[in-house]
Amino acid sequence: AQKFKVAVLPGDGIGPEVMTEALKVLDAVEKKFAVAFERTFANVGGIAIDKEGKALPQTTVDICKGADAILFGSVGGPKWESLPPDEQPERGALLPLRKIFGLYANLRPAIIFPALTGASSLKEEVISGGFNVLVVRELTGGIYFSQPKGIEGQGRERIGVDTMRYSIPEIERIAHVAFQAAQRRDKRLTSIDKANVLSTSVLWREIVESVAKQYPDVKLNHMYVDNAAMQLVRWPKQFDVLLCENMFGDILSDEAAMLTGSLGMLPSASLAEGSFGMYEPSGGSAPDIAGQGIANPIAQILSAAMMLRYSFALNEAADAVEAAVEKVLDQGLRTADIFQGKPGEKKINTREMGDAIVANL
Amino acid sequence: AQKFKVAVLPGDGIGPEVMTEALKVLDAVEKKFAVAFERTFANVGGIAIDKEGKALPQTTVDICKGADAILFGSVGGPKWESLPPDEQPERGALLPLRKIFGLYANLRPAIIFPALTGASSLKEEVISGGFNVLVVRELTGGIYFSQPKGIEGQGRERIGVDTMRYSIPEIERIAHVAFQAAQRRDKRLTSIDKANVLSTSVLWREIVESVAKQYPDVKLNHMYVDNAAMQLVRWPKQFDVLLCENMFGDILSDEAAMLTGSLGMLPSASLAEGSFGMYEPSGGSAPDIAGQGIANPIAQILSAAMMLRYSFALNEAADAVEAAVEKVLDQGLRTADIFQGKPGEKKINTREMGDAIVANL
Ligand SMILES: CC(C)[C@H](C(=O)O)[C@@H](O)C(=O)O
Ligand SMILES: CC(C)[C@H](C(=O)O)[C@@H](O)C(=O)O
Repeated sequence: AQKFKVAVLPGDGIGPEVMTEALKVLDAVEKKFAVAFERTFANVGGIAIDKEGKALPQTTVDICKGADAILFGSVGGPKWESLPPDEQPERGALLPLRKIFGLYANLRPAIIFPALTGASSLKEEVISGGFNVLVVRELTGGIYFSQPKGIEGQGRERIGVDTMRYSIPEIERIAHVAFQAAQRRDKRLTSIDKANVLSTSVLWREIVESVAKQYPDVKLNHMYVDNAAMQLVRWPKQFDVLLCENMFGDILSDEAAMLTGSLGMLPSASLAEGSFGMYEPSGGSAPDIAGQGIANPIAQILSAAMMLRYSFALNEAADAVEAAVEKVLDQGLRTADIFQGKPGEKKINTREMGDAIVANL
Repeated sequence: AQKFKVAVLPGDGIGPEVMTEALKVLDAVEKKFAVAFERTFANVGGIAIDKEGKALPQTTVDICKGADAILFGSVGGPKWESLPPDEQPERGALLPLRKIFGLYANLRPAIIFPALTGASSLKEEVISGGFNVLVVRELTGGIYFSQPKGIEGQGRERIGVDTMRYSIPEIERIAHVAFQAAQRRDKRLTSIDKANVLSTSVLWREIVESVAKQYPDVKLNHMYVDNAAMQLVRWPKQFDVLLCENMFGDILSDEAAMLTGSLGMLPSASLAEGSFGMYEPSGGSAPDIAGQGIANPIAQILSAAMMLRYSFALNEAADAVEAAVEKVLDQGLRTADIFQGKPGEKKINTREMGDAIVANL
């Protein structure tokens, strides 16, 4: 049997609960597809601060380095919110993981499943039949990581400085990811920038245009980020794939995710060159419902499916997991966050949702 | 009679048509309130490119310098879209105007009038009773104007660079504007930043906290920009005033405006220290409907009302114009963009809308 090494980082809040269900699904995949997932657990986020003194301990980095992929839960919670920003679970774990492993391509699908259109704050007529937008976000460059960055000077003379910087190879590689994703979907790509104000955006637009020549089957357009923030609200179905630099992708992917109304359903992938990647739910650690066994494990399970697809090339297995999730939704099974009380719906807990997906696999 | 000098810059697209109606309203205000508005017209945007060779000719700048306020229509259109970004009507006129006149405080209300909730793409239950959010955007600093900015190097080695920079006085003065606006409203201020990633945001948060001590009656909270993009969609009524740096304000004010569903209703003000300001509709030049006499002049008229309030301290006159607009809406009068075909609604054109507002004054 093919064997893959997975670094399992459950993290804080609902992370451990939903991770348990995702691992059950991987167990089922092992049996059905004659593959093996060797799992090594490691601490990350708040629990790592508590147990090992920092959000991303070296032991965790080493475990990830020995793996083929990282399956990540979620991090953060009120307990660690008063730490300096650099040391907090989210920032202190996610940014170094992205940098150390070169996770430059962040794929964030925002999908409304037809069964769940009611959860969106958008009108029925705007989203009838659901929508399916993929945000491809550059994740290791731009204003997140460029120098100079810091607070210069003393006292009243202090000045805050951040730098947004992009090189041509950085733009090219993320553009290729976006065009290739569009080729597998509806072949429409909207590149987001602010080329009327930013020099990085002028270069971005030029390079995206030149990469486009290699993908004549994909229809490319450009849109300013402020207009995109409006168009997502007005008519999300106009989009197939959105290509964004790091900061714009942060903002627009969250906006698009919230438009679906079911954050607990949305996975994400952060890919390095080659096959290594990190996979995590788009939602947060939801400390308010942690430990109650009622969180929705679907985002974590679909993150595992993305891992099967992107890091392990187990497309058939990934399809099977995704199909099992859809079946369970069609059966009317709902965790509390997606329960609307419609006829045919049944409210179930985290474990029951995991079991149902396994049963449908 | 008190006399005020207004530089009138109608611009492109629907700009001239809606400006005509706003000027009629100013005529009516002159009579009713015994004031005088001395108007000087100047070219801006595409028409200025065509007639005088650039989007913001020196003659226009000089006319604005001689005035107490600028009433601005809108600029841009397909004819000028292939020019280099720097020379295009929007960028080539707006950014220099902001810089030359020190228009550091941009007020962008996003209001759903109860009569118009149907126009929003948000569900009735999310916006019932309307909502009223004011975005206060820093407009002359940050990544729009800081150096270094440009494309460095040659050929494949080129690197795009933009710089986001904020000093303490820049943050303080915009924070004061936002706190004072909140004091006149529901006394709640949400300061937007990305303090988990940006150094400018760390300084921003610290300074906003310290300014807050002078406004103990205003309830302040902080929110990351990505979360704010989500929360606006989920439950816009949670917000009263949003305080944003330049780029975040660009994105969030447009998102909030689109959530109202009636861009043709929304005015904006860009204020300098002292009483000078520029006033313009939030929507664009709408070239698709320009010249047909069907555009909604309300955003332009409400922009004139903001001018009365902020630059001329004619609060009574401003209130009267705003009340007249509300009355006309209550009477069911609608331009095409806000016409929903409900009982009691009557579709009217640009001129008729201007006349109706004058008649109600
Ligand atoms: C926690 C934060 C640093 C992070 C980001 O801004 O990238 C988060 O918002 C995300 O989108 O994954
Ligand atoms: C045209 C552009 C430069 C401008 C901006 O980004 O500020 C516009 O989007 C706005 O919000 O007024």
